[in-house]
Amino acid sequence: MAKITSRSTDYSQWYIDIVMQAQLADYSPVKGCMVIRPRGYALWEKIQSVLDSKFKETGHSNAYFPMLIPESFLKKEAEHVEGFSPELAVVTIAGGETLEEPLVVRPTSETIIWSMYKKWIQSYRDLPILINQWANVIRWEKRTRLFLRTTEFLWQEGHTAHATQEEAEEETRKMLLVYKSFAEEYMALPVIAGEKTEAEKFAGAVKTYSIEAMMQDKKALQAGTSHDLGQNFAKAFDVTFQSPDGKLEYVWASSWGVSTRLIGALIMAHSDDRGLVLPPRLAPTLIRIVPIFKTETRPRVVEYAMGVFNNLKPHFSVEIDLDDNTSPGFKFAQTELLGIPLRIEIGPKDIENNEMVLVRRDTGEKIKASPSGLIDRIKVLCEDIQNTLYHRALVFRKENTVLLEKYSDFTEFMEKEAGFVDTGWCGDSACETKIKEETKATIRNIPLGRDELQHGACIYCGKPSCHDVIFAKAY
Amino acid sequence: MAKITSRSTDYSQWYIDIVMQAQLADYSPVKGCMVIRPRGYALWEKIQSVLDSKFKETGHSNAYFPMLIPESFLKKEAEHVEGFSPELAVVTIAGGETLEEPLVVRPTSETIIWSMYKKWIQSYRDLPILINQWANVIRWEKRTRLFLRTTEFLWQEGHTAHATQEEAEEETRKMLLVYKSFAEEYMALPVIAGEKTEAEKFAGAVKTYSIEAMMQDKKALQAGTSHDLGQNFAKAFDVTFQSPDGKLEYVWASSWGVSTRLIGALIMAHSDDRGLVLPPRLAPTLIRIVPIFKTETRPRVVEYAMGVFNNLKPHFSVEIDLDDNTSPGFKFAQTELLGIPLRIEIGPKDIENNEMVLVRRDTGEKIKASPSGLIDRIKVLCEDIQNTLYHRALVFRKENTVLLEKYSDFTEFMEKEAGFVDTGWCGDSACETKIKEETKATIRNIPLGRDELQHGACIYCGKPSCHDVIFAKAY
Repeated sequence: MAKITSRSTDYSQWYIDIVMQAQLADYSPVKGCMVIRPRGYALWEKIQSVLDSKFKETGHSNAYFPMLIPESFLKKEAEHVEGFSPELAVVTIAGGETLEEPLVVRPTSETIIWSMYKKWIQSYRDLPILINQWANVIRWEKRTRLFLRTTEFLWQEGHTAHATQEEAEEETRKMLLVYKSFAEEYMALPVIAGEKTEAEKFAGAVKTYSIEAMMQDKKALQAGTSHDLGQNFAKAFDVTFQSPDGKLEYVWASSWGVSTRLIGALIMAHSDDRGLVLPPRLAPTLIRIVPIFKTETRPRVVEYAMGVFNNLKPHFSVEIDLDDNTSPGFKFAQTELLGIPLRIEIGPKDIENNEMVLVRRDTGEKIKASPSGLIDRIKVLCEDIQNTLYHRALVFRKENTVLLEKYSDFTEFMEKEAGFVDTGWCGDSACETKIKEETKATIRNIPLGRDELQHGACIYCGKPSCHDVIFAKAY
Repeated sequence: MAKITSRSTDYSQWYIDIVMQAQLADYSPVKGCMVIRPRGYALWEKIQSVLDSKFKETGHSNAYFPMLIPESFLKKEAEHVEGFSPELAVVTIAGGETLEEPLVVRPTSETIIWSMYKKWIQSYRDLPILINQWANVIRWEKRTRLFLRTTEFLWQEGHTAHATQEEAEEETRKMLLVYKSFAEEYMALPVIAGEKTEAEKFAGAVKTYSIEAMMQDKKALQAGTSHDLGQNFAKAFDVTFQSPDGKLEYVWASSWGVSTRLIGALIMAHSDDRGLVLPPRLAPTLIRIVPIFKTETRPRVVEYAMGVFNNLKPHFSVEIDLDDNTSPGFKFAQTELLGIPLRIEIGPKDIENNEMVLVRRDTGEKIKASPSGLIDRIKVLCEDIQNTLYHRALVFRKENTVLLEKYSDFTEFMEKEAGFVDTGWCGDSACETKIKEETKATIRNIPLGRDELQHGACIYCGKPSCHDVIFAKAY
């Protein structure tokens, strides 16, 4: 087993080492594209399964729209084409012939979907439409990183159509909160939900909301976005409906998405220098049993361990490592590298005492346990691991978030400690741009749920503040 | 509700009417690409869920490989590039620049996957690799049909790597049987499993197996294929492994896939002139309750119907239609159009007798039922509907399959009745080609599981037969 670079030595290399050695993903021969290997894809399947249930509980259905979009469609919404043009992959030849109109590989699907909504929406009775799509998209990025930013990625994109502005805005915020609760309850990842500034919003949106998480290098990672699209796409594609009182009105829209980037967030939020650390609720394998034996003790130990395995199998995702060619030490390191939340060690001495040792991946704590009541004990333990990871991440974020009022403190903080700065902003994008140029920090979002402003002045210009904002360097 | 063209009037239009009116799919603005609407996608989700479990039970894991493949990769396997070149969509521009090497949108993923297997396989200890991918692919087709043949389609593609020829061939046949049991047990679709001829096999395979089903117009539809790839892709990508005795050998391969075409098969196999008919095991909605009321009876009927609904909800996928703006007759027609296997009608008279009427979609049969024991009764009924659909399709296929020995009978049959012809073939592709040119019928496959030949002579040339074969016109 190769050594993992420590976080303190080289944080970026540590991340790559974990992704590669835990076999989550691999580089592909196509620039910027990665291969998601079975262990990585199993994580995505877990994420999909939970989110898909949440989408369906909130009334959404899945559908599938073409991946290729006529180039002219993107041009129908001015901001949208400006935002996405530099990142497009374009099909110009198909079936051996040059296409009359090039087709772009979807970077996002608003345009193709709204061209269909035009066919499907005539009356207020056809609304709302609540559709989600699980798909691959391509955005041609110059600098890529496994999971965090890849040319092709997998995601879901919700696209909804409504009769009123209020309903579209309500949907936008509802889905943001679905993302927030997923991040916090399943990924054990505390996030700040808020509104993006004009400069940082989605190309084509009226408002963009995001959830932002702090990684272990104190940088922010945008983990999900939800957009109030107003009537922008309805106007671009001429999608109107007859209201109950017979008037013709443009339809209101939202869109929202999360991607395989979440796997990157999961890795960076919790893992350590020994490898991956996964929250129990998303770990594809929850428990691995490692029997400890020599040739003469093998039959007895394996028999006992298999008994434990068969006892746990109906209740948990559990594996047993019976390999004769590797040592217990190697096997322990392997369960740690792979981020399996709970290891069960069983040796000859344990069997004499009719017990076993449970080892928590998150804390390394070793706990003696007897076979009686084991299932309930593991359930409680997994809940505790889940909570511990969440609170550890929350404490880390709190410790690395400062409230600042002076710009000199701000620049010093961004240079030395880094982390999140909670401060005031006048609302002028000139200040935002200056700060970005001078410190590389950007406004992550304007946090939701604050009843009143906590900062009186803009951190940059000193004029009265309109918004509390969170600044950070970001992925 | 628009009228559905009858099968006898225009079979093709009947199929399109069902797809469009049951809102399974719609035409998109991109030539040959369709939109899979929520009702169609829900069918795909059911298919995915069952197949995915079967793949995992047989030891496979899911992964994801890039959609864009360097053009040169396809050229590494001579037959493969020849087969797929005419159908490729090619990305030549990305990120605003002309690419040095064009990238093709995957028509299938053997080449990109085997380029990765080269990195992952060194020793026999790395084998077998049993990977499946759920993905979209593009094959630029001149003539397209909703679900049956579209430029972009969704599918799964299994790609496995083995140490021996026997193991690869065993895997190929195992997955063919997985497809066969899925088609028969879930889709209620009897299929003939067999080997494709040299002319009809997959571009790059040593052997291709298929399952073939008969549609209601007596044409064959290839519903799934499984390929023994021999060492063709290992040689093209130089993928070798060290065997236990230290020798370097090329790896053996299989690949296998089914696609959204299965939805087309499902529609065409069972539906009738009133709309879609779905087997209960794949129907997204199993039961729809239609309360029959007038203004004065509404409260009583709805209360009773809601009681039935709440009773069934924990056990089945059930809906209730409480719309006040449509008549019971309209609602009945709607459940039939959508293919909901069981309708429950509840009117004031039924309530007086503490009963309800169950209406089978497959036979139209009406069955009185009381609330007591209802759940078990429905379970039995659904099993019966599932079996009835399967046996109806099986009888239809048998009635339209003939054993022929004379070519004049063959041409007459293909011209007049059409259907499947079970006959002998000498193994010479010249005969196969002539028959295709003269009758449009092709060899669907060489059925597996026959202990001895049933036909002595080739239907075309009269020379001794090497294979029993199934001829049919096909989709």
